[in-house]
Amino acid sequence: MSQKEIRIGMIGYQFMGKMHSHAYRDFPFYFDTEVKPVLQAIAGRNEAAVKAAAEKMGWASYETDWRRLIERDDIDVIDISTPNHTHAEIALAAAEAGKHIIIEKPLSLTVEEAERMLEAVKKNKVIHMICHNYRFSPAVQYAKKLIDEGRLGKLYHIRANYLQDYIVDPDFPLVWRLQKDVSGSGSLGDIGAHSIDLARFLVGEFKELVSIMETFIKERPIASLQGGLSATADTSQKGEVTVDDAALFLARFDNGVLGTFEATRFAQGNRNKNKFEINGEKGSIRWDMENMNNLEVYLADDEPGLQGFRLINCTEEHHPYAGAYWPAGHIIGYEHTFINLIHDFLEAVAAGTQPKPDFEDGLKNQKVLAAVEESARLKSWVSL
Amino acid sequence: MSQKEIRIGMIGYQFMGKMHSHAYRDFPFYFDTEVKPVLQAIAGRNEAAVKAAAEKMGWASYETDWRRLIERDDIDVIDISTPNHTHAEIALAAAEAGKHIIIEKPLSLTVEEAERMLEAVKKNKVIHMICHNYRFSPAVQYAKKLIDEGRLGKLYHIRANYLQDYIVDPDFPLVWRLQKDVSGSGSLGDIGAHSIDLARFLVGEFKELVSIMETFIKERPIASLQGGLSATADTSQKGEVTVDDAALFLARFDNGVLGTFEATRFAQGNRNKNKFEINGEKGSIRWDMENMNNLEVYLADDEPGLQGFRLINCTEEHHPYAGAYWPAGHIIGYEHTFINLIHDFLEAVAAGTQPKPDFEDGLKNQKVLAAVEESARLKSWVSL
Amino acid sequence: MSQKEIRIGMIGYQFMGKMHSHAYRDFPFYFDTEVKPVLQAIAGRNEAAVKAAAEKMGWASYETDWRRLIERDDIDVIDISTPNHTHAEIALAAAEAGKHIIIEKPLSLTVEEAERMLEAVKKNKVIHMICHNYRFSPAVQYAKKLIDEGRLGKLYHIRANYLQDYIVDPDFPLVWRLQKDVSGSGSLGDIGAHSIDLARFLVGEFKELVSIMETFIKERPIASLQGGLSATADTSQKGEVTVDDAALFLARFDNGVLGTFEATRFAQGNRNKNKFEINGEKGSIRWDMENMNNLEVYLADDEPGLQGFRLINCTEEHHPYAGAYWPAGHIIGYEHTFINLIHDFLEAVAAGTQPKPDFEDGLKNQKVLAAVEESARLKSWVSL
Amino acid sequence: MSQKEIRIGMIGYQFMGKMHSHAYRDFPFYFDTEVKPVLQAIAGRNEAAVKAAAEKMGWASYETDWRRLIERDDIDVIDISTPNHTHAEIALAAAEAGKHIIIEKPLSLTVEEAERMLEAVKKNKVIHMICHNYRFSPAVQYAKKLIDEGRLGKLYHIRANYLQDYIVDPDFPLVWRLQKDVSGSGSLGDIGAHSIDLARFLVGEFKELVSIMETFIKERPIASLQGGLSATADTSQKGEVTVDDAALFLARFDNGVLGTFEATRFAQGNRNKNKFEINGEKGSIRWDMENMNNLEVYLADDEPGLQGFRLINCTEEHHPYAGAYWPAGHIIGYEHTFINLIHDFLEAVAAGTQPKPDFEDGLKNQKVLAAVEESARLKSWVSL
Repeated sequence: MSQKEIRIGMIGYQFMGKMHSHAYRDFPFYFDTEVKPVLQAIAGRNEAAVKAAAEKMGWASYETDWRRLIERDDIDVIDISTPNHTHAEIALAAAEAGKHIIIEKPLSLTVEEAERMLEAVKKNKVIHMICHNYRFSPAVQYAKKLIDEGRLGKLYHIRANYLQDYIVDPDFPLVWRLQKDVSGSGSLGDIGAHSIDLARFLVGEFKELVSIMETFIKERPIASLQGGLSATADTSQKGEVTVDDAALFLARFDNGVLGTFEATRFAQGNRNKNKFEINGEKGSIRWDMENMNNLEVYLADDEPGLQGFRLINCTEEHHPYAGAYWPAGHIIGYEHTFINLIHDFLEAVAAGTQPKPDFEDGLKNQKVLAAVEESARLKSWVSL
Repeated sequence: MSQKEIRIGMIGYQFMGKMHSHAYRDFPFYFDTEVKPVLQAIAGRNEAAVKAAAEKMGWASYETDWRRLIERDDIDVIDISTPNHTHAEIALAAAEAGKHIIIEKPLSLTVEEAERMLEAVKKNKVIHMICHNYRFSPAVQYAKKLIDEGRLGKLYHIRANYLQDYIVDPDFPLVWRLQKDVSGSGSLGDIGAHSIDLARFLVGEFKELVSIMETFIKERPIASLQGGLSATADTSQKGEVTVDDAALFLARFDNGVLGTFEATRFAQGNRNKNKFEINGEKGSIRWDMENMNNLEVYLADDEPGLQGFRLINCTEEHHPYAGAYWPAGHIIGYEHTFINLIHDFLEAVAAGTQPKPDFEDGLKNQKVLAAVEESARLKSWVSL
Repeated sequence: MSQKEIRIGMIGYQFMGKMHSHAYRDFPFYFDTEVKPVLQAIAGRNEAAVKAAAEKMGWASYETDWRRLIERDDIDVIDISTPNHTHAEIALAAAEAGKHIIIEKPLSLTVEEAERMLEAVKKNKVIHMICHNYRFSPAVQYAKKLIDEGRLGKLYHIRANYLQDYIVDPDFPLVWRLQKDVSGSGSLGDIGAHSIDLARFLVGEFKELVSIMETFIKERPIASLQGGLSATADTSQKGEVTVDDAALFLARFDNGVLGTFEATRFAQGNRNKNKFEINGEKGSIRWDMENMNNLEVYLADDEPGLQGFRLINCTEEHHPYAGAYWPAGHIIGYEHTFINLIHDFLEAVAAGTQPKPDFEDGLKNQKVLAAVEESARLKSWVSL
Repeated sequence: MSQKEIRIGMIGYQFMGKMHSHAYRDFPFYFDTEVKPVLQAIAGRNEAAVKAAAEKMGWASYETDWRRLIERDDIDVIDISTPNHTHAEIALAAAEAGKHIIIEKPLSLTVEEAERMLEAVKKNKVIHMICHNYRFSPAVQYAKKLIDEGRLGKLYHIRANYLQDYIVDPDFPLVWRLQKDVSGSGSLGDIGAHSIDLARFLVGEFKELVSIMETFIKERPIASLQGGLSATADTSQKGEVTVDDAALFLARFDNGVLGTFEATRFAQGNRNKNKFEINGEKGSIRWDMENMNNLEVYLADDEPGLQGFRLINCTEEHHPYAGAYWPAGHIIGYEHTFINLIHDFLEAVAAGTQPKPDFEDGLKNQKVLAAVEESARLKSWVSL
């Protein structure tokens, strides 16, 4: 094995497993790197399915017990792409085994789990990362650069929405994402967690918040097969929806910024509307995942008369990561946010450095999620 | 005097006075009507200024004391376009004098004032209206029609922002809109009140809310002349800003709808960004005052594959009020919302009916404003 | 009569007559001016209709023969808002009578007529203007300013479309706009003429062009009443459409700019899509009448990374004419282009100066229209 | 070798070589297929560079003489991603050798070459395809489906622009794309060819056209290294630009549709603005590569009042190819057009069928390109 080969073992192979597999395959094609990711093995309980997935996605082997994966000494990195309720157990075992870890968000079901996970990766000195992929859009990275350079001046506002519509139909089945014991929460942890991460990345740390959480459809048909977003339903039997359909909150940040947040799966016509606007003393930015290559930037010191939001297509060498892809104006897509993220992760593993966002970010995010839940339960403001 | 002449006396002649004057002049040009508005008199304290305004805007006479205007028996309607702290006193006097009343928003400084005002107009059986002009955009009226017809089904969400940026500069002077004793509140009553009215119009009544109010710039230069939006400042002397720069709140409506609201004057690049989105079971709508002729409509029962927000230019005969103006695609502007509003008011006066929105709407709006202030003060949820 | 009263006599009172009437009424309200337009008289053949129009629109008197209007010595200005085939005769008579003239576009049916009209106004030393209203959008005026200041550098391209859709239905009746003897041409003279004027205003003079003209629907039902855009049809009887449904042309300008132009009434979904883009060495601009308050501006010397079209809402004091209206972000509409135009006209009449665009512009425009027709007929390039 | 392995040999490894390599690697990951593309060998003259490219992009071997590649019997498919002037010679040799061929556009430098190439692939019964990748955007494919189903009715108009801005700077060097003997033409063949293909795909065959071609900057610095889009220049020495900077044309199609086309590299702010609008009797569509996931669709039989362009995010299972990727609303990018194209090509090779677009399309496209050149030269209409 050459020094720069990094051998991956991935647990879970659905939506996110597919996405991560693709990113491992694609990242060395685009970036100048000495890293060579080796797709060593994937794990899943259903042997036929995991075997087929391994072949389809190019993994050299498979296991039907994730513990076996962690025991293997031909694996450097454990990639945790499983439903949320398994995160903690797997991550703790992987850390104990000295494996570097990359994990899907949210980090865990609870803050307590997240704290133990962070402690474990620190104690075992393994490298750790959490997949808040939207940070890795070139437009978002460029927004971060503008903010860090002070181009917006002191910040005043962030308003962030993550709107989807795929469960508005009351006959949409009770998939695992709608069960609290598996997913921890609903819209909040699934999509709201992304908005929280973007806010932490671009604006700063949350100080206090007040929230509403709501489940509009209380019962749904039992899913005949608990797959990803598109499971079919047996409409004769119903089960309780135990997570939120929508989560809204107001927040104050440590630096005085005011935020409004909204995560919902009940916004018809919004397939995947992850967007935010940030306003500062000297300018504003707007971003919308559905047009993720674009960043809208307003600069208050532009010449009077010529002031207006600039629609910047962040596909130029000036925009972070964009230089790895195609000429200006040739847009990239959702999957490239993961390729960029995996780039950062594997380069860090190769260099022995710690990438961002990591389990510490995961824990802080989890604390915000917990605060949103507590605020909704108590119907009061909650401090972080 | 013919039966359909309606003689107006207007108090105040700044921004809103100019706007109302124009609407009185323009309304009979566009609409089929038997009403003939007579611009009888305006009142203002500065004789030179009020005289010049009367000449410029076509008023037949002027008074330097608004009480004189109310005493005159050649006036049928009192139009109150003055700063907010004068609303109650003038409205009570006008109602006592049996004058019909049209008044700028917000109705008053306090709920108590608003209640007395409503009582007065009812007791004196005068017709009353409050100028929530944005209701009168053809696109908003059409949105109302779609909602009333059930085209969106059961409603789930409203998110409404009213964003401006004209006071971000700390040297912007302490105009009357920044003084609580004159204006009642800041962004909240000035622009947030519009979002509240749109929400009440389109979605329903507020049940409970929780808010943040913030004053980012605590002191500002004394305004050398307390004019409209563009007063100059004496930067050597500073005074306290006693109103909110920003007001944000989450709300539940009686019908279960969840709302996020944000009114701020600190959103660089947003000159007058009054916008909302409403999501229902069967569809969604979006509107933005800066492109006020357009309504975006998503209908979930559109054919699969062909689902998407429709960009509807509401300039057709099918769209309320639009038939009074120009051929399809020939857009109208901000001032036309007032022309439409004045149309409804004067037709109602002529017919002896009560138009909407009226003082009752004003009072309900005031109660929401008060709840927002109370919630911010108590840092807790407040029920309406 | 005070020195600044200007007494108008208008011929025609349909769509454009209504628009002009409104502009005369509204202009002194918005602008600082010593001009007082007097709506002295209108003329039309149908006495009942012209009388009703006079009352509705505020004209002091009416005539049923336009010649009578020109004979009256209490009229300073003749406004010609009639169908195109009457323009020349009326304008010649008005000029002979020493009346100042404002006329709807296109100037005439033929270049020969246009030349005689220009000669007449010059000989009689009357002030003359043609109503290419789109020039008078603040955004277009601001575009002109940017170009004149060299902000776009040397110009390379203009692409201008004027797309409508109101006659796609084959049962739309044979109104006067579809009859060559009345209107001169179809899309070309009605809407293409506007694009030509915008190009001449912003880019320069046409040098040569090559065109296509097409009539997609050759026969249409006879219109039972030849009104404006919305006449009803008697579908049992058909007549020949004698004008173009669409006119497209490529052009070279004297300064080397290349242009593509397209005027059509067969572009479904485009109610009134009058738009253009101009590209220069140092920047580009885009404008679209359906969002007429906005100008998109790209400046190539913007900082790398921050380059992008700026969406400028031309409602600020920095934008020509916009200061006369409302605060920034409070948009104006189609009719305001006419108010601005009438402002320029009446101020010029009062000052004894010659406004733009004038009959000379009308003649040059007519020559382009004639060249487009000749090129389509000959199927070859035509030089201006 | 299993039956479904397809062994590729690619000539050229710059921009398009990189793009194709990626598509071969990625296609089996996304699509259900029995095809296994084998990246057998690439060819290039510079040994160090081609070796590095082979390693970087995952090719098993390399050759420094493309003829060697064609001689190898372990290769089934020749991929021609070289500059245009080499296309004919390579394609003829590959066809003679019985290799299936996929080639970058434009097919050749001349119609005569294109004819010989088509003849060769037919005679040798090899499968052939040309890389008009924009056809393979899900939105464009969906547009095609709508048109074929008659959803737009009889078509009237297409207006297609392909605007770029990367050579506006006169110091941009004289790269191969600016040399006629290497590239055949400039904007015309490089980007205009794409618009022509989209028009042929969606609208039909060209009947006649008239054009302008222009070279705004006649001389440029010699490129010190003739690379892709970003070569550096030696500004002390200049050479003649022998291709068009811009090509514009009007066209009639066999079915009566009228078209306006414009290809230019002098449109500041338009990085890669490949867009079109098509208008038919019953509806219209708009597409813009910079937002390639979206299709705007207007349907004239939508309910009055609710008519407007729908913004459809073509990322759903209902949209061709989109089902192979991510959930609705998770957008794809430029490179996915090539993945889709390569899918069609390799499936056809495996099945022994002939995919589209093929050399016949390439020839027809070449004839349009030649007609545009001839029309510009003769300054007259040219029939196809």
